Amino acid sequence: MSVVNEFSGRYDVAVIGTGPGGVSAAITAKIRNKSVLLLGSPDLTGKLVKGHKILNYPGLPEVTGDALADALKKHLDSLDIAVTEDRVASVLAMDDYFMLLGSKNDTPYEATSLIIASGVVADKPIPGEVENLGNHVSYCATCDAMLYRGKPVVVVGYNPKEEEEAVFLAGVCSEVLYFPQYKTPTRWEDGSADAAAGAAVIKVVREKAASIAPDPAATLMNPAIILTTSEGNTYTSACIFVLRESIAPGQLVPGLETEGAHIRVDMQMQTNLPGCFACGDITGTPYQYIKAAGQGNVAALSASSYVDRIRAAKETAK
Amino acid sequence: MSVVNEFSGRYDVAVIGTGPGGVSAAITAKIRNKSVLLLGSPDLTGKLVKGHKILNYPGLPEVTGDALADALKKHLDSLDIAVTEDRVASVLAMDDYFMLLGSKNDTPYEATSLIIASGVVADKPIPGEVENLGNHVSYCATCDAMLYRGKPVVVVGYNPKEEEEAVFLAGVCSEVLYFPQYKTPTRWEDGSADAAAGAAVIKVVREKAASIAPDPAATLMNPAIILTTSEGNTYTSACIFVLRESIAPGQLVPGLETEGAHIRVDMQMQTNLPGCFACGDITGTPYQYIKAAGQGNVAALSASSYVDRIRAAKETAK
Repeated sequence: MSVVNEFSGRYDVAVIGTGPGGVSAAITAKIRNKSVLLLGSPDLTGKLVKGHKILNYPGLPEVTGDALADALKKHLDSLDIAVTEDRVASVLAMDDYFMLLGSKNDTPYEATSLIIASGVVADKPIPGEVENLGNHVSYCATCDAMLYRGKPVVVVGYNPKEEEEAVFLAGVCSEVLYFPQYKTPTRWEDGSADAAAGAAVIKVVREKAASIAPDPAATLMNPAIILTTSEGNTYTSACIFVLRESIAPGQLVPGLETEGAHIRVDMQMQTNLPGCFACGDITGTPYQYIKAAGQGNVAALSASSYVDRIRAAKETAK
Repeated sequence: MSVVNEFSGRYDVAVIGTGPGGVSAAITAKIRNKSVLLLGSPDLTGKLVKGHKILNYPGLPEVTGDALADALKKHLDSLDIAVTEDRVASVLAMDDYFMLLGSKNDTPYEATSLIIASGVVADKPIPGEVENLGNHVSYCATCDAMLYRGKPVVVVGYNPKEEEEAVFLAGVCSEVLYFPQYKTPTRWEDGSADAAAGAAVIKVVREKAASIAPDPAATLMNPAIILTTSEGNTYTSACIFVLRESIAPGQLVPGLETEGAHIRVDMQMQTNLPGCFACGDITGTPYQYIKAAGQGNVAALSASSYVDRIRAAKETAK
């Protein structure tokens, strides 16, 4: 479950997201001789691998999503850029670097600059989710499981990948109620081979998460949180884990200026936080592959200049 | 010398420039079912065809400039997008369309929206050039040659393609002094087969254009303009034709807001003129292929929305 942080020091550039924006940013940062941490999925992005044809990625006429993902993977390979399979649960902006807390790595990642290319979050937060975050609502099973050892927890999973997290929690908690917010059968419903793992304490509940609120009947010794579903049922537990592909940017990086679901950037892809850049769908419409790739390039060049300035300032201070 | 305007009506979108920005814009506009006029060179762009490797065009690792130009050409072909080989000498913003005056077409092109992807102009204007434009200084041989029939003219050519324009002028004017501002030998110097055409009245002067000023000794009946060179010589003629690959954007489209050599755009690639968009190097640094392609996509989507709005407004007015 843990990922070896292959580079022990501080990266020059951390890139969150492996869509065309993140891949483009990683490629250009690497070419500018920067050490790059690229966080995402080895299969790049869920959105890309679908079969439909992309007609307007110049130079690759009528490329399918799969073929474009393949081409991007080969490009990363040709430059020896590895994808670190992890999801960032939160980011702290330190004085002259960023600390990234991953879901699968106990040691936080460190990077001088940050490029957010995580795509837009299609799902709106559950009412009460943001208000109770850190207070019996969590985005990270690895980070917080131990706090709820031997207690019942709820997992609201927005895609099948989250089932793995439920299995992990089942090894620690007394009961796991799993609320799939997607249609495909879960591993416990389709009777697949590995379904047995943790199944004893995992119960799938096919209801839509509607709201989250603290339990008024809870005591200091026994705090609890309540999930209410669209079906009108309530589920009380010690913690609700809300697990999505990407987290709304404002929650991911405290202090980041957003505009609805988007991060506000200028023409150089600079956010309001020094050293923090963004590219792709997360910066706003249009949601297009080639636009994301173009912005990734600009973000990487801006980040590289920033890293150079920070380095020069440190040299001068010596 | 004349190009047939294959589409007799008004285009939805005119794109000036065939670098990655212009090609990307044309591709996306075509996919959005818009009629597209793509103006530039059939070999796409002079900058692209050079042999060096491009490392950061995601999906095409280590592609050479030639190979990228080939891939872009194939993409245009696959969508039946033709390149109209012409250079736009000036653009007039009309009420709800743009009129483009080409160098090789007597009939102006008309388009509801305009995307400028002409790249940055590396050469600064000659001192006095902009001030005297339209007053015995011209950017367009085809447009203005007849005004100087039987008179001596000067041509300041910034690349070998302009030699053709000098040949054209030689058929109309009494004398053509040709000032190549590049190092490669002109067709009259290298002894090539077609050098003879018009050579009788063409004289190559290898001096650097330094300034332009009206001739104080000229009369109303015999107006004249003087080119002074860095070598300190002066050349009096009836007109100075200043011919470059691309014209500074402020001169190309009167009223366009610029910032130095660049056009000011917002995140949607909108300029200060309604219906006029820009993308690629002309919008500012960084000068990168993939950035240009990404911005071309955004410009085309913005232009397509604009065209739809203009159409809807006309429908309503009926």
